[in-house]
Amino acid sequence: MFCDIVVGEAPAVRIHEDDDYLAVLDIRPIVRGHTLVIPKQHHTDLTDTPAETVAGMTILGQRIAQAARASGLHADGNNIVINDGRAAFQTVFHIHLHVAPRHDGDKLSFAKGLVVRRDPDREETARILREALARL
Amino acid sequence: MFCDIVVGEAPAVRIHEDDDYLAVLDIRPIVRGHTLVIPKQHHTDLTDTPAETVAGMTILGQRIAQAARASGLHADGNNIVINDGRAAFQTVFHIHLHVAPRHDGDKLSFAKGLVVRRDPDREETARILREALARL
Repeated sequence: MFCDIVVGEAPAVRIHEDDDYLAVLDIRPIVRGHTLVIPKQHHTDLTDTPAETVAGMTILGQRIAQAARASGLHADGNNIVINDGRAAFQTVFHIHLHVAPRHDGDKLSFAKGLVVRRDPDREETARILREALARL
Repeated sequence: MFCDIVVGEAPAVRIHEDDDYLAVLDIRPIVRGHTLVIPKQHHTDLTDTPAETVAGMTILGQRIAQAARASGLHADGNNIVINDGRAAFQTVFHIHLHVAPRHDGDKLSFAKGLVVRRDPDREETARILREALARL
């Protein structure tokens, strides 16, 4: 499924793209701005992904986390998460990294997001993040 | 507090140490083998940590995740987590990365670990992980 996004055959709201990585909004966001960083090369999980790819994915995740703080989303922090394996809640078996922008006191909406996971205006959220990334 | 661990003035059960990073068991583990990767240089969170440090921390986290699977802990997967900021549950303001080894069907004990967080035999857990790391 992520391979389809990489080649443009599946729809996705893009935050960033370069030769090696793609960053798109999660289609079932836990919080607003929940972004996935996806290496274009297909690897499954932490057992088969080259260390340099794990590093590159995380560095881009850091930039998106910084952008989320600087952006109109006004994040106060971020969770960066890699779920390695089905036992660890991985559901798409193409390695990826989650960036979940957080706000002071949002514990409840964060917990609710584990159930509801919906952004009413994804295009606007993406625009805000792209703009902040470009300004970093 | 992590700076005290780095210089050896606070006790910690060590999994790995090199010139730049330290990996120790979390003193309040969510699951058995819950490990923290800590850069020796003090940085606070993702806003001030150099990209190369974030990369190195994550690469070591990947190795520990691989070791947890290969080890006598027999992990089926791992969660890799960086909590960036108080809003994102960061409690120690010296950047670090969590590796939480997971097992198929452990969702309940994982949830319970958020409350209980206790390993009855940390030394044995550390021995198992160190041994697997050395064998990778």
